[in-house]
Amino acid sequence: MIDETKLKNFLDAVKWDASGLAPCVVQDARDLRVLMVAYMNRASLERTFREGRACYWSRSRGKFWLKGEESGNFQEVRSIQLDCDGDCLLLFAGQKGGAACHTGMRSCFYRTLQEDGTLAVTEERVFDPGKVYGKS
Amino acid sequence: MIDETKLKNFLDAVKWDASGLAPCVVQDARDLRVLMVAYMNRASLERTFREGRACYWSRSRGKFWLKGEESGNFQEVRSIQLDCDGDCLLLFAGQKGGAACHTGMRSCFYRTLQEDGTLAVTEERVFDPGKVYGKS
Repeated sequence: MIDETKLKNFLDAVKWDASGLAPCVVQDARDLRVLMVAYMNRASLERTFREGRACYWSRSRGKFWLKGEESGNFQEVRSIQLDCDGDCLLLFAGQKGGAACHTGMRSCFYRTLQEDGTLAVTEERVFDPGKVYGKS
Repeated sequence: MIDETKLKNFLDAVKWDASGLAPCVVQDARDLRVLMVAYMNRASLERTFREGRACYWSRSRGKFWLKGEESGNFQEVRSIQLDCDGDCLLLFAGQKGGAACHTGMRSCFYRTLQEDGTLAVTEERVFDPGKVYGKS
């Protein structure tokens, strides 16, 4: 059961930046693949903790971003960790649909720097974004 | 062999923020534990790529931060990935000394949010920071 005082203490302990945000790294709880990095504010972190699904703060749209709201690819939260500085979060999640990236790639980090300086695509596409988001 | 034009194209492709920085997630190449998140600017990323050891930009000190310079706990770079937005990096590294955090913990993410809202230490300490950094 949530102890409201302790939860408030935790939310107070996070060092939010000047915009009230903290970066959040998301790992697939199954195999620890880093899926994405997004931003949370205090309200989205509290919502994530209470509801058990990852909810970010969209910097571009200036509103809550419940991951999977449109695609159905929710991120079921398994664990939340805070770093030593208190300004960065790490989330372990079960990724519905198997892919986190809006491009249909499993991970947003689908490009790898090669020895010669080329950036190459090194990940398989899981879904067709045109079908999932209804646009090509 | 590095193709200088391709490397320049890659460095140009990274979307640096208003301060010229991008967050960089570091995973232990051995078992994919996320060790830390630091920031890079263009020059530190180029140096990291050329020298094969992680070099960040210290926001607090306003200078290069060659990880391990003081402690000997260098991060040998195995791979560098860029996310879909181009504004975040993921680095796979071999962590010398077994610990990345200045507290002596293996990972900076050594605190885990518990079900009741308590933040608990969930990682073993690898080294005594007083001995490694010469201060308690």
